[in-house]
Amino acid sequence: MLIVQKYGGTSVGTLDRIKAVAQRVIETKKEGNNLVVVVSAMSGETNKLIEYAEFFSKTPSQAEMDMLLSAGERVTSALLAIALNEFGYKSVAMSGRQAGIITDSLHTKAHIDHIDTTYLKETIEDGTIAVVAGFQGTTKDGKVTTLGRGGSDLSAVAIAGALEADLCEIFTDVDGVYTTDPRIEPKAKKLEKISYDEMLELASLGAKVLQNRSVELAKKLNVNLVTRNSFNNNTGTLITKEENIMEQPIVSGIALDKNQARITLRGVVDKPGIAANIFKKLAENNINVDMIIQNVGVDGTTNLGFTVPQNELAFAKKIMEELQSSEKLEYNSEIVKVSIVGVGMKSHSGVAALAFSTLANENINIEMISTSEIKISMIIHAKYGELAVRTLHKAYKLDKN
Amino acid sequence: MLIVQKYGGTSVGTLDRIKAVAQRVIETKKEGNNLVVVVSAMSGETNKLIEYAEFFSKTPSQAEMDMLLSAGERVTSALLAIALNEFGYKSVAMSGRQAGIITDSLHTKAHIDHIDTTYLKETIEDGTIAVVAGFQGTTKDGKVTTLGRGGSDLSAVAIAGALEADLCEIFTDVDGVYTTDPRIEPKAKKLEKISYDEMLELASLGAKVLQNRSVELAKKLNVNLVTRNSFNNNTGTLITKEENIMEQPIVSGIALDKNQARITLRGVVDKPGIAANIFKKLAENNINVDMIIQNVGVDGTTNLGFTVPQNELAFAKKIMEELQSSEKLEYNSEIVKVSIVGVGMKSHSGVAALAFSTLANENINIEMISTSEIKISMIIHAKYGELAVRTLHKAYKLDKN
Repeated sequence: MLIVQKYGGTSVGTLDRIKAVAQRVIETKKEGNNLVVVVSAMSGETNKLIEYAEFFSKTPSQAEMDMLLSAGERVTSALLAIALNEFGYKSVAMSGRQAGIITDSLHTKAHIDHIDTTYLKETIEDGTIAVVAGFQGTTKDGKVTTLGRGGSDLSAVAIAGALEADLCEIFTDVDGVYTTDPRIEPKAKKLEKISYDEMLELASLGAKVLQNRSVELAKKLNVNLVTRNSFNNNTGTLITKEENIMEQPIVSGIALDKNQARITLRGVVDKPGIAANIFKKLAENNINVDMIIQNVGVDGTTNLGFTVPQNELAFAKKIMEELQSSEKLEYNSEIVKVSIVGVGMKSHSGVAALAFSTLANENINIEMISTSEIKISMIIHAKYGELAVRTLHKAYKLDKN
Repeated sequence: MLIVQKYGGTSVGTLDRIKAVAQRVIETKKEGNNLVVVVSAMSGETNKLIEYAEFFSKTPSQAEMDMLLSAGERVTSALLAIALNEFGYKSVAMSGRQAGIITDSLHTKAHIDHIDTTYLKETIEDGTIAVVAGFQGTTKDGKVTTLGRGGSDLSAVAIAGALEADLCEIFTDVDGVYTTDPRIEPKAKKLEKISYDEMLELASLGAKVLQNRSVELAKKLNVNLVTRNSFNNNTGTLITKEENIMEQPIVSGIALDKNQARITLRGVVDKPGIAANIFKKLAENNINVDMIIQNVGVDGTTNLGFTVPQNELAFAKKIMEELQSSEKLEYNSEIVKVSIVGVGMKSHSGVAALAFSTLANENINIEMISTSEIKISMIIHAKYGELAVRTLHKAYKLDKN
């Protein structure tokens, strides 16, 4: 098999950890696999470099930030390759450029345009382990770029896609994806397999193992993604396409998002353009509106409700007040969003009904509802968040194997 | 003017120091100059990275060492460019590769093959300050290389040569080149100008401001080199070609080399090939033989004496004993080499005679003598080293302005 492994910051956080990673890489090699390893900077290094830059400027020039921040991953790649060579396994360190990662020129959050795999393929064919500095690439004309948050995962997925690798293993410090946050429900189970779409919906689930960008890219490139724990030998969770999951459970997981606030406009005159105007303004200011509900009201007016991230509420409030419309405005940050995610929903009826009756039995009032093909999200009072998760987890039998 | 400035590790050793360097660069820019700045890693960084590598291997793979060690200079170049941009002076950070430095593939001690100055020239013409990560380049096929000890000086000199810069200023933590080590002779004067050849001979002088590789390259490329102190505004020492120095002093400086040991073979049979065999063996083992003296002896035998660096004496001794020749071997590490350097010697007679009589007056016995066009070196007993330096310094009137 050809396997791409990616090790995150805590997995390579110390010299001893890098040695442990080397041993794990060697085990995989010994099993007869070919390997490309993608590494992050040692944990703390990137933050240190950011602090250095901030000593000089609150708004450091972005091309220079890329030159600065790309140094950390290069150090780790060199050290891991040195360790592998010392253990007798041929290995070469590669910068993003050497691995052929070509990006656009959007410094500090560049997008991968394509990968020139010539050198990577030569290296693999030679039986050598390629150790690639993650998070970075160069533009067509050779400027250094970085890929933004979660960039090393993205490097790994993109390389796995370009090489048509059999597997892309993302090593972090958690075991995988769970049916819900184990800190809320100790009976939460680790999922063996999950579809790309479910993973995308569950991204806000407790342990943020993967960023949506990486999952989206894996889906697009059809990369079999596995999240594993570099601190143990557990099997992790496979994120793959729906067809690869034989028995699709109706519900895969329950997610709780505490970073929600609601804005309600009462007495909105029921004519076109009002809502459009509001959401245009919010979008212009980069406020992320999530759920939107409009109820039919009486006497020609309606009520309009929507949610925004809690940490953007103050800014959203300011924008709403600047609009100086005649509606009555209400703000509520004492809410949470509980979501039920599962591809099985598509072919099963009654999934939503079970959720509503389960919460009703606990006397939890559902204030807003929004559904997609594979997700049901409900806004409830914040104080019921954990209770709702535990009750729903049980109702959908997620605590059973 | 087009000026290349190079700042060494202590000059950029802290964030505050980097800010001070930014201000000095801006002063130079304000005077109407165009600038390329070459920087070293922050002091301590390179050693830290070497220690990291040694954690994994006593003989780390060299291509990976280059990937590792090149990270430090990249960080400094990014930080200085960020600082300059913040002060309102357009600046871009460049890796060795981006600056167009193409080397051979001798990892960890690569030689610069040529510099593709396209991007550097574009940057300068745009009025932008280029901040280049020193000490590094890439091979023709894009592998990262480093240039070995003193590599950042070399980067600066090579860039100055390729751009035909008017001046290449090397900033360190000393004021320049002195007539002798000021710790031995407090009356030592800083030299205003010195020729390349004198500088090469004086390289072993107290304050090792420049490595011979850089001076040799400056001579070859006809680069006007200035060594200056980044911690003050003193003028430094100009190292230039002989023709540029109007009044050539007979003697420019006195150097003391304490790292000397002597090996003497007594009763060498006076036939061809004996000495050749000895020095071939030493060369094969990378022992640096410095001075060699052979005296005519009596009864068909001669005495052969030569010096080696003190820290290589034990190894040299082992090799000599393995040769198992019939000569009587003597070892002496209680010696030093005192050298008098000056281009004026070429056209003045009596320079050596003054040295011999000066030491004779102090009852210092000269054990070996070797001369070149611009240098007289003498081996004396170690205990007289400092006295010899001070006496000669006065005899050649180097303490007078």
